[in-house]
Amino acid sequence: MTNRIAEGTMRKSRIKRLRKLRTSIAERGLDAFLISQPENLRYLSGFTGSSGWLLISGQNAILATDFRYLEQAKGESPDFEIIQTKQELRDWLPGLVSDLGWHKLGFEANSTSYNTYHKLSEAAKTRQVNLALVPTTGIVEQLRSIKEPEELEFIKKAAALVDTAFEQAKAVIRPGITEKEAAWEIEKYLRQEGSEGIPFEIIVASGTYSALPHAQPTGKTIRSAEPVLIDMGARISGYCSDLSRTLLLGDTDKILWEIHDIVLKAQTTAMERVESGMAASQADRLARSIVEEAGYGDAFGHSLGHGVGLAVHELPTLGPNSSDSLTDGMVFTIEPGIYLAGQGGVRIEDMVVLENGKARVLTRAKKDLSF
Amino acid sequence: MTNRIAEGTMRKSRIKRLRKLRTSIAERGLDAFLISQPENLRYLSGFTGSSGWLLISGQNAILATDFRYLEQAKGESPDFEIIQTKQELRDWLPGLVSDLGWHKLGFEANSTSYNTYHKLSEAAKTRQVNLALVPTTGIVEQLRSIKEPEELEFIKKAAALVDTAFEQAKAVIRPGITEKEAAWEIEKYLRQEGSEGIPFEIIVASGTYSALPHAQPTGKTIRSAEPVLIDMGARISGYCSDLSRTLLLGDTDKILWEIHDIVLKAQTTAMERVESGMAASQADRLARSIVEEAGYGDAFGHSLGHGVGLAVHELPTLGPNSSDSLTDGMVFTIEPGIYLAGQGGVRIEDMVVLENGKARVLTRAKKDLSF
Repeated sequence: MTNRIAEGTMRKSRIKRLRKLRTSIAERGLDAFLISQPENLRYLSGFTGSSGWLLISGQNAILATDFRYLEQAKGESPDFEIIQTKQELRDWLPGLVSDLGWHKLGFEANSTSYNTYHKLSEAAKTRQVNLALVPTTGIVEQLRSIKEPEELEFIKKAAALVDTAFEQAKAVIRPGITEKEAAWEIEKYLRQEGSEGIPFEIIVASGTYSALPHAQPTGKTIRSAEPVLIDMGARISGYCSDLSRTLLLGDTDKILWEIHDIVLKAQTTAMERVESGMAASQADRLARSIVEEAGYGDAFGHSLGHGVGLAVHELPTLGPNSSDSLTDGMVFTIEPGIYLAGQGGVRIEDMVVLENGKARVLTRAKKDLSF
Repeated sequence: MTNRIAEGTMRKSRIKRLRKLRTSIAERGLDAFLISQPENLRYLSGFTGSSGWLLISGQNAILATDFRYLEQAKGESPDFEIIQTKQELRDWLPGLVSDLGWHKLGFEANSTSYNTYHKLSEAAKTRQVNLALVPTTGIVEQLRSIKEPEELEFIKKAAALVDTAFEQAKAVIRPGITEKEAAWEIEKYLRQEGSEGIPFEIIVASGTYSALPHAQPTGKTIRSAEPVLIDMGARISGYCSDLSRTLLLGDTDKILWEIHDIVLKAQTTAMERVESGMAASQADRLARSIVEEAGYGDAFGHSLGHGVGLAVHELPTLGPNSSDSLTDGMVFTIEPGIYLAGQGGVRIEDMVVLENGKARVLTRAKKDLSF
C-alpha cells in the first residue's frame, strides 16, 4: 500500500469506529462521550498530538486542542470539527455542553484524574449547567481489541522487525558484553530500521537477573554458561510488537534447559489449542496447567499474555482472573515463563492473531538454542 | 563523589524530605498520605520501579509493591517498611488503614484516577472502614522544587551533557540531513555519553516548522538559508536537563535574525534580573515585556520557563498566571520564543539555579550563530 491509499483506508476505518462508538453511547443512554486516553484518541481521530480531547455524540465529532496542535489536528483529523481550547477543561467544557444541549456525558474513569473530574463537576454546578458525568471503562478499548485488516498489516511489519532484530541480538550477545550495551545495540538496530521509538525499555537480563520478570538491563557483563532473557518491541505507524526469547549460553545449568523445555511446551500447546470463543482465562489455563504439572506453578507469577496494538499492553488480558473472551481479529501475546530466584528464568513470547477460529503466529524468530 | 558516598548522602536527604512531608501532613490534619506519582515516589523513597505506593504517617513509612519489584524495593528503599501487595489498591488498603487506625488519608488528586479513588472509597464503605479520602495537590511537588546540593550535582552533569551534545549537533546539522536523522544523531550521542534514555523527544525543527513550538522531527531535509530550532534534554541519576538553541543557517531571512536578537535580549534580561523572592509571574514579565515592546507579544505563546528536576517539567511555573514564587535552590528554564507562522521561529533556552538571591546559569552552550 502506498501511504496515500493507507491513509484513505484508515480514514474509512475511523468513520466505522465512530459509528460503533455511537452505538455504544446510545446503548448506555449517554448524550455524548469525552475521550482523552491517548491511544483511544488516536484510534478514533487519527490525532497524534500529546494534548487533546474528543467529544463524540450522535451528531458531533469534536477534537479540542490548544494552539500548539491546531494545524496538526486539522491535517490528521479531517472528519472532526477542530476547536481551539484555552485554559483548562473546566473553563470551556461546561459552556460547550450547555450550547449543545447535552446532559449525560460519559468519561474515561481509568484515565481521567480525580482532580479533572472534580473541577469539571464543580465548574458545571457553579455555572448552573445541568451535567451528569458518567464514569465508564473499556468502551473504546473493547473496540480496539479487534483489529481491522490494515491495523494487522502494521502489526505484522512491527513483528517482522523484532524478528530480524532478534537475529541481530544473537550476533551481539556474546560473553563479555554488558546487558546495557546489548540492549542499546538492539534498540539502535530497531530504530535505524524504522521503529518509531520503542514501545518499552528492552530487557536483556542475564544469569540470576533473568529470574526477575521486570528486570532492567544492568552494567553486568554477560558470561558464558548462563541464561539471557531478551524482551523487545517495535512500533510501526503507531502499532506495536512484543517478542521474548531466552538464550542459554554454553554450558548452562541443566535445570534451565529443563524449564526451557517446559515453557516451550506450555507455549506451543497454548498456541495450538487457543480458539475463538474461548474464555481468556481458559487460554491461560492451557499453558499454566502444563507448568503446574511439571511442578513449577508457583514460579509462573504472571498472566499468559496481553493484547497488542496501539498500546503494547491492551485488551484482551489472558490471565487466571480475566473476564475477557477471545474472538477473531484479536492480537495478543502468548508468553509463559518460569522464574527460579537465585538460579535464572525462562520466558518465551510470541504474538498471534485469531483468524478463522485459530491462532496464527505473527512473530517467527527461532526458538532453538543452538547458535 | 563515589557512588557509595552519593547513595549515603541521598539516603540522608530522603530522611529529611520525609520529615518535611510529615510536617505538611500534620499541618493539614491528615493521619497519613498516599503517594503514587512516580517522581514523588522516587524522591521520597529512592524506589525506581514502575509500580508502587507509599504510605507516610507520623510513625510509618511504607512502600507497597508487588512481587515483581520486592527485591528492588528492599535494595533501593532501606528506610521503608516494604509490604507485598496482591491485586488492586482497594483490595488491601482498607484493611491496612483500619489496622493502623488511620481515618483521614490524603491522596494525590492530579495523579490518581477517578476510578482508583472511587473503587477505594466504595471498598472502604463496604468493609465499614471509617476512611475519609482527602484530595491534595502539589505537596511533594513543592518540596521537590527546591533542590538539595546533591540533586544540583546531578542536574549540573545533565546540563554539561546537553552542552557537549549541542556542539555535536552543530557538527551534524548541515544542509542535506533530515530533521529525523539529526535528532537521532543527537540522541545517540546523549545516550552513548551516559544519558538514561532521554527525558523528552528531541526537537529538530527547520524552516517554517520552527514556528511550531511543539514540532516533531520530520523527514524534511534541512536546507541552507533557514532556521533550525533544537530542543534537547539528558537524564543523569534520574535528574533532567533541558536546552534549546536556534541556528540560522547561511543567508536566512533578515526577520529571523531580528527576532533572534529580541529573544536573546529578553532571555538575557530575565536571567540577569530574576531574583529570589520574586513572583514567578513577574519573572515571566521581565522577558515578555521586551518581546511585547518589540511588537511580538502575540508570537510568544507559551510560558517563560518551568522547573526541572526528576521531571523535565515541574514546579515552579514561570508564566503570566503562575501563583508560584521563586526562592533560592530552585532550578528552572528561561526560554522565551517568537514564532511567526509560515516564516519560522526562534527559541533560546537555558537552565538556571537561584543562589544567594540571583540566577546562576547551568547550561553553557554558545549562543553565537557563526559556526
